Amino acid sequence: MVRLLGIDPGLRFTGWGLLEADGNRLRHLGDGVIATDSSDSVPERLKVLHDALAALLTELRPDEAAVEETYVNRNGAATLKLGYARGVALLGPALLGIPVSEYAAKSVKLAVVGTGWAAKEQVQEMVRRLLPGARIGRADAADALAVAICHAHHRASRNRWAAGTRMA
Amino acid sequence: MVRLLGIDPGLRFTGWGLLEADGNRLRHLGDGVIATDSSDSVPERLKVLHDALAALLTELRPDEAAVEETYVNRNGAATLKLGYARGVALLGPALLGIPVSEYAAKSVKLAVVGTGWAAKEQVQEMVRRLLPGARIGRADAADALAVAICHAHHRASRNRWAAGTRMA
Repeated sequence: MVRLLGIDPGLRFTGWGLLEADGNRLRHLGDGVIATDSSDSVPERLKVLHDALAALLTELRPDEAAVEETYVNRNGAATLKLGYARGVALLGPALLGIPVSEYAAKSVKLAVVGTGWAAKEQVQEMVRRLLPGARIGRADAADALAVAICHAHHRASRNRWAAGTRMA
Repeated sequence: MVRLLGIDPGLRFTGWGLLEADGNRLRHLGDGVIATDSSDSVPERLKVLHDALAALLTELRPDEAAVEETYVNRNGAATLKLGYARGVALLGPALLGIPVSEYAAKSVKLAVVGTGWAAKEQVQEMVRRLLPGARIGRADAADALAVAICHAHHRASRNRWAAGTRMA
């Protein structure tokens, strides 16, 4: 049994979701959103995000973390800002020695919905179905749980494969 | 007299340069480059950058920091990676309560060379002329010193303006 933290980073809202995974069996432990004030300076907002994430990691003690490797192509400035938040999100677990995996958006959709071309709403709907009983708040938290689910599936496949090779 | 740290962030190489500014009089105190190993994972490289920057900030004790606000438009992935490094570079001073200013590339060129359209090499040449006696290593360190010079000029202008309004 491992505790997996999914993170969906953004400068305005960073979603997080914690799962317990026992092979392919998943249990929802919690989720939420870290918000920063857009009237603050960017360095101050990154500090708020970093401090909140550090407190969360210390409290939740995940064994592994996973972050979605999306990027917008809208414009350089928007992509750069997303990069700030993602950089801080990747740094947080690394500082505590927690392994972080990155997954392409397509891999997350494939793992959660079964097709790499699913709409955002389908992903969020499937997250709710895969974690029955969980009352998931904001879309950012559901997105973070989707990354955690994707990571759980990849771990399970890796372990099955490792078990198979051990037996061979 | 204030100690100003310029930072030119990049995931592979992050340049830094420290100046002492007394109004418009500048003194070069040091510069260098933080390098990360491209064969390491991105979270690990961000940790290396963060830890090195934190050690540097503690050792050099700058009063203020400045970062160039450039972004490449080549492609989303490259911009995002630059964002990771810049996010960590903006976070470092913020965590220690050191104010960080951001300057557009054009402002840096204008402050250092006198025109916003100067070539990269002209900027580096002028940095060497403005800081005689300093043996500046890599181009990344010269770029970091250029941002520090830009910040020094803007501070001096602001202070002159503030002095003027006090007299009025």
